[in-house]
Amino acid sequence: MSARLRTQVGIVGGGPAGMMLSHLLQLGGIESIVVEARSREHVEERVRAGVLEQGTADLMIESGVGERLKRQGLVHRGIELRFDGRGHRIDLSELTGGRTIMIYGQNEVVKDLTDARLAAGGRVFFECDNVKVAGLDAKPSIAFTATDDSREIACDFIAGCDGFHGVCRPSIPAGALTTYERVYPFAWLGILAAVAPSSDELIYTSHERGFALHSMRSPELTRLYIQCAPDEPLENWPEERIWDELSQRFATIDNWQLQRGPITQKGITPMRSFVAEPMQYGNLFLAGDAAHIVPPTGAKGLNLAIADVRVLARAFEEFYQSGSRASLAGYSGACLRRVWKVQRFSWWMTLMLHRFDGDSAFDRRRQRAELDYVTSSRAAATSLAENYVGLPMDPV
Amino acid sequence: MSARLRTQVGIVGGGPAGMMLSHLLQLGGIESIVVEARSREHVEERVRAGVLEQGTADLMIESGVGERLKRQGLVHRGIELRFDGRGHRIDLSELTGGRTIMIYGQNEVVKDLTDARLAAGGRVFFECDNVKVAGLDAKPSIAFTATDDSREIACDFIAGCDGFHGVCRPSIPAGALTTYERVYPFAWLGILAAVAPSSDELIYTSHERGFALHSMRSPELTRLYIQCAPDEPLENWPEERIWDELSQRFATIDNWQLQRGPITQKGITPMRSFVAEPMQYGNLFLAGDAAHIVPPTGAKGLNLAIADVRVLARAFEEFYQSGSRASLAGYSGACLRRVWKVQRFSWWMTLMLHRFDGDSAFDRRRQRAELDYVTSSRAAATSLAENYVGLPMDPV
Repeated sequence: MSARLRTQVGIVGGGPAGMMLSHLLQLGGIESIVVEARSREHVEERVRAGVLEQGTADLMIESGVGERLKRQGLVHRGIELRFDGRGHRIDLSELTGGRTIMIYGQNEVVKDLTDARLAAGGRVFFECDNVKVAGLDAKPSIAFTATDDSREIACDFIAGCDGFHGVCRPSIPAGALTTYERVYPFAWLGILAAVAPSSDELIYTSHERGFALHSMRSPELTRLYIQCAPDEPLENWPEERIWDELSQRFATIDNWQLQRGPITQKGITPMRSFVAEPMQYGNLFLAGDAAHIVPPTGAKGLNLAIADVRVLARAFEEFYQSGSRASLAGYSGACLRRVWKVQRFSWWMTLMLHRFDGDSAFDRRRQRAELDYVTSSRAAATSLAENYVGLPMDPV
Repeated sequence: MSARLRTQVGIVGGGPAGMMLSHLLQLGGIESIVVEARSREHVEERVRAGVLEQGTADLMIESGVGERLKRQGLVHRGIELRFDGRGHRIDLSELTGGRTIMIYGQNEVVKDLTDARLAAGGRVFFECDNVKVAGLDAKPSIAFTATDDSREIACDFIAGCDGFHGVCRPSIPAGALTTYERVYPFAWLGILAAVAPSSDELIYTSHERGFALHSMRSPELTRLYIQCAPDEPLENWPEERIWDELSQRFATIDNWQLQRGPITQKGITPMRSFVAEPMQYGNLFLAGDAAHIVPPTGAKGLNLAIADVRVLARAFEEFYQSGSRASLAGYSGACLRRVWKVQRFSWWMTLMLHRFDGDSAFDRRRQRAELDYVTSSRAAATSLAENYVGLPMDPV
């Protein structure tokens, strides 16, 4: 016999989308329970994205979980595009009326949100096995096993914040969703190195040998990415090969130096664009990676997830305050227009910066012309900048 | 025995590039002879592009061949992008600090230039057969047959303004040129109709059935284009099918009406992107379509040709005034950076507006997001506008 629980919104997934949703709901006086398959340590330590749009950082601060972010986050006002051995700064702030991005790890965001939820008495189950959702059309429920007990949560609604491989999206009946997908013919090898960043700002470099990205997590931690073959095993990338490859791709005519240091983590990320439409079915609402995946080039995955749950939290608030389902019914439509614009931007950044082995010589020259244009036209640079700092979060 | 002539610059091709070059050279005190394979009537009557960038119109006016253009050209300050049954105006002038485009047929440009050249005593040979260029490395010459006489022009330089299928580019030794090419899997069926335009401005429409463009030549002449299969014979397009197809593609939710009228010309244009690098070899300089082709979506072919010969005329002036070959040596480099940016724009407009049968559902949605973004972001609309009215002609 399973333990039965009851809440208003059952949230599957304790990553940034699920935790932020639970946090925002609590501020709106709405009960929720979070069910997460992994351990708290795992979720809080896995290295993911680290660029917060201004709107994401603002939401953390406004909703009271931004204290550590304000102390430890690195405010960036520009990024560099590097090609043909030369760097070109995109002055994000100057081009967008003063907007900025914040460098702060996704795992730190999750840590802050989890701390806030637990401090506020929020119910969060970690290490849940056999998570299943049911009753999507009428009375939803979430069943799972935690610390060897079977449990079932009866709820008014389920928020599917359980990522691309989660159980929520596949629980929607076949035929109710249309999916859109593009898989890129390369991946990113990402490393974390215990060395001070070689530049104060992010560097996106497009090189004959492939794309590379110089980023950072803190004044002592450098994060670097290399475009690589999607099926290449990690063992093929010993430390020396990684540094040599990075040095070649970041090389400039004035002999820019990449600082090397001990590599503390490495992993390979596949590259995919994916959207499921609509982002809801009955009383189930998908948010973040459960509904859409972007290639990481534009640093949009986390930010899209936060934008989704911001819309979703408001729709739940409207329902519980007024009984109106209008905003809930319009949730998917309200999100998708922005989701597709962000997909466009992520695709465009990916196309502009990576080497596509199937490209013709014409495509290569066109790609270089795109870089030349973006770095020489104020309008084009503004377009990049307004997307990078984040399109307006409110549906238009 | 052939008649021997002598000039400073021998120009192969009497289209807009060749005639404008000859005109600009004459203003600079440099002699030229133009050799054109077709009849004067043919060149002056074949319907081609009809959108002049502000810089092209300015150059005609400043160089004294803009009287008729000023009287008959239609100044346009915006264009419409139409999709999902709705129109979205791109306010070219407001977005570019007051710049405009001019609607004026390419054949009218050629007529004005030819009139000016002949009035100034310029030497122009029409209906030339067996045109050949030789001596590109040292002492160039152009041989041809006109009115049954063999002739040969000895010259200091040859300007190859003879289009994509002309003799100049293939006369360059194999291996000296690198070519870049993309052929699109569709063509444009273009018609001229004796009916007043249905809108004051150009309408670019992206429709599930394919792209269409509403343009005009005068207050009494409408020019319309339909995306069609590249291998479809003209006979498959009787008048009624053309109008029905156009009406479907231009349809709006508020029942916009396309005016029909007698079709006086029709033709099919293939779609290609092409660049030859460098645009010169020895004493031969390529300009316009001889060096590069753009798909017509951005209305750039004529304007690129005029930009080339403006750079080339100045380089010849420098040589004849100072003896310096520096600008001649830098001709290709000076043109190509802008050429590639214009290639990028023409490719982007083509990609955004046409139906590509091989596209995935993801690509279709991304294409719609591009249209949505361009028509909702001032930065993106400005980028379109600055390219449409014309990037700065002077090399940067």
